[in-house]
Amino acid sequence: MQALNGFRDFYPEAFAQRAFIFETWRRVASGYGFVEYDGPPLEPLDLFTKKSGEEIVGQLYNFIDKGERPVTLRPEMTPTFARMVAARHRDFKKPLKWMALPQVFRYERPQKGRLREHYQLNCDIVGEESLSADIELIACLIDVLRGFGLSSKDFVVRMSDRQFWIDFLIENGVPESEWYSKLQAIDKSEREKPEVTREKLGPLAEKIEKIFTEGAASERISTVMNGLKGMGLEDYIQVDFRIVRGLAYYTGIVFEAFDRSGEFRAIAGGGRYDSLLKNLCDVALPALGFGLGDVVLSELLKSKGLLSQKSAQLDYYVAIADESYRDRAFGLIHQLRDQGCKVDYALNSQKLVKQFEAAESRGAVKVIIVDATIDEGAVLLKTIATRDQIKISLIDLLQISVNEK
Amino acid sequence: MQALNGFRDFYPEAFAQRAFIFETWRRVASGYGFVEYDGPPLEPLDLFTKKSGEEIVGQLYNFIDKGERPVTLRPEMTPTFARMVAARHRDFKKPLKWMALPQVFRYERPQKGRLREHYQLNCDIVGEESLSADIELIACLIDVLRGFGLSSKDFVVRMSDRQFWIDFLIENGVPESEWYSKLQAIDKSEREKPEVTREKLGPLAEKIEKIFTEGAASERISTVMNGLKGMGLEDYIQVDFRIVRGLAYYTGIVFEAFDRSGEFRAIAGGGRYDSLLKNLCDVALPALGFGLGDVVLSELLKSKGLLSQKSAQLDYYVAIADESYRDRAFGLIHQLRDQGCKVDYALNSQKLVKQFEAAESRGAVKVIIVDATIDEGAVLLKTIATRDQIKISLIDLLQISVNEK
Repeated sequence: MQALNGFRDFYPEAFAQRAFIFETWRRVASGYGFVEYDGPPLEPLDLFTKKSGEEIVGQLYNFIDKGERPVTLRPEMTPTFARMVAARHRDFKKPLKWMALPQVFRYERPQKGRLREHYQLNCDIVGEESLSADIELIACLIDVLRGFGLSSKDFVVRMSDRQFWIDFLIENGVPESEWYSKLQAIDKSEREKPEVTREKLGPLAEKIEKIFTEGAASERISTVMNGLKGMGLEDYIQVDFRIVRGLAYYTGIVFEAFDRSGEFRAIAGGGRYDSLLKNLCDVALPALGFGLGDVVLSELLKSKGLLSQKSAQLDYYVAIADESYRDRAFGLIHQLRDQGCKVDYALNSQKLVKQFEAAESRGAVKVIIVDATIDEGAVLLKTIATRDQIKISLIDLLQISVNEK
Repeated sequence: MQALNGFRDFYPEAFAQRAFIFETWRRVASGYGFVEYDGPPLEPLDLFTKKSGEEIVGQLYNFIDKGERPVTLRPEMTPTFARMVAARHRDFKKPLKWMALPQVFRYERPQKGRLREHYQLNCDIVGEESLSADIELIACLIDVLRGFGLSSKDFVVRMSDRQFWIDFLIENGVPESEWYSKLQAIDKSEREKPEVTREKLGPLAEKIEKIFTEGAASERISTVMNGLKGMGLEDYIQVDFRIVRGLAYYTGIVFEAFDRSGEFRAIAGGGRYDSLLKNLCDVALPALGFGLGDVVLSELLKSKGLLSQKSAQLDYYVAIADESYRDRAFGLIHQLRDQGCKVDYALNSQKLVKQFEAAESRGAVKVIIVDATIDEGAVLLKTIATRDQIKISLIDLLQISVNEK
């Protein structure tokens, strides 16, 4: 019996790494004033086909439930977010700054950096059309990655302006029906042979390639760059007009984060999507957001030695000298736990030396030895790091442990 | 567009309540030395039919995936737990004390206290046959509920000994084929008419009813009660032989937690299941565990006024006097956030009075006003609660905020 291919079991050590990632995501994004929400992992199928078209069904874990409803595991969070915002946006002051940490699911062939499920940090801002929101969002993404100890030597956020390209296509007389295929060709230009891209771009190829190498003037990009400079984050940003994001619904500033070495897939991506809420839910609110997955991020952190485990260190391990002291040990253990200490002990009778070993292997800071000393209202307290051992009254021990919490 | 019937959207206020519940679960259980794991929400269907029989399929969100695999959303965590323990139990010292907070799914008619999804705290101990493990597990359940502020006036853990009943049935010559139906009759005796129960119990009805009212001698129960007394938890326990737990696989001490008022469904339940790992995964390890759901618990906490929201209070709201100071405000905001402070500010140009209102509605502790004072390297700092306003240098402000973290 095994987990399904492409799905992960999180044994305690892997769970501790996941907890470290989640905690860092939450710490930094909540420091930016984002508040957390969540929705169901199972949703009506048409919530996603409405946004992405019927083509997406081939990549979904979709089925008909016992009530004959077409349903699917969520492949992304944005449609759920749009549905929730549309239903209750009047109850909240704008701008909304909402974050979520959904697990999302895609039926795809599992490969390096891509499983059939992963967790995502989603941060979105709704109801603010000024570029301050774009600055805030990109700064948050950079600081989340910095929060893991990654520096500007490790990653870069490549930023572009999709609206610049739309304006460019209009100026050059490209009919609207061709915009999407041109943008797709720009998006894929890095991964395709130059002659393939050139053919797709047609007569505009030369002009566009010049913009790739020399850049172009964009008021939006200058404003965002200035803001990020004000925050001291300019080293983390690179303007790159080849970034347009594959999805059709982006409207303004777009960005993707990559490791500098180029070893991994994109770490994160996002941008402004001012028309999506209107198209999906008939709510005319400007919006922007990013998604950051845990799989590529974990690989990058591992490669840099930055994937810590949230420590589950014990404050005390209680060693019971013999079984006649067990019931009295219970009282002490319970009082310490009640004060918020992490405490463990041997559930069956064991030699003291075995119990000391268990204390060390569990990473306990101190060992409390319950033996005949308890008849005097005291115990022996051993500090593992220093091997110091003192006799201490129960009253003092409980006092110390309160003070340390 | 709505969530599926029986599934919950967690808007920020509901999410904060969920976060409060999860945090209390994790705080208390990790204080007991439980370490957290998780598995996939989607699993092979036969993982569950192997444990519970084909009947369970009627209650599952099961389907055939695009690779022709019969799969299902998990209706409970135990089979995943058994699979994971069986695969790697040799890598861990016994006893294992593992916890998980899975979301689980059942296709049932939604009703009060019962949705189609809920979250569960699962705590399990593996590899310890002595009753110390039962004491530890029941104490943990009691302390988790106490951790929310519930007292022995609010809830009780009703404990019984399923092995006592097996021994009783053997002594009274009941053939093994009838054990399960007798135990089921005992389990249902509270919810059924006495005459129905009596008929099901047959000639043993009188003897069994006497045990319901007068109790019986069980060495196991006495030992567990003594241990819980040692921890000062005897007020939370009631021996009640009518508890046997519906599921077939329990082997020893079993228990269920109820609110004292009798208004709600069972809050939690668990017990010892020494044969399950052997039967499911061919690993002969004794085990025991409990499950505690979030839906009935939330209702109970709400009724007692104990359902807090984890606070998302801001440390600082930065008010920007006019747009010419925005870029300099960015630098300060970013430094404060880098020090771990929660900071927010208006993304567009707003009158100061509006910004003060936003600060209050966001629950900010202090407001920093960035105006002409910043040309002197200082800002105005206003404490919302007291309305005190002082001028403070940027250096001092950053120093204070470091010290407070």
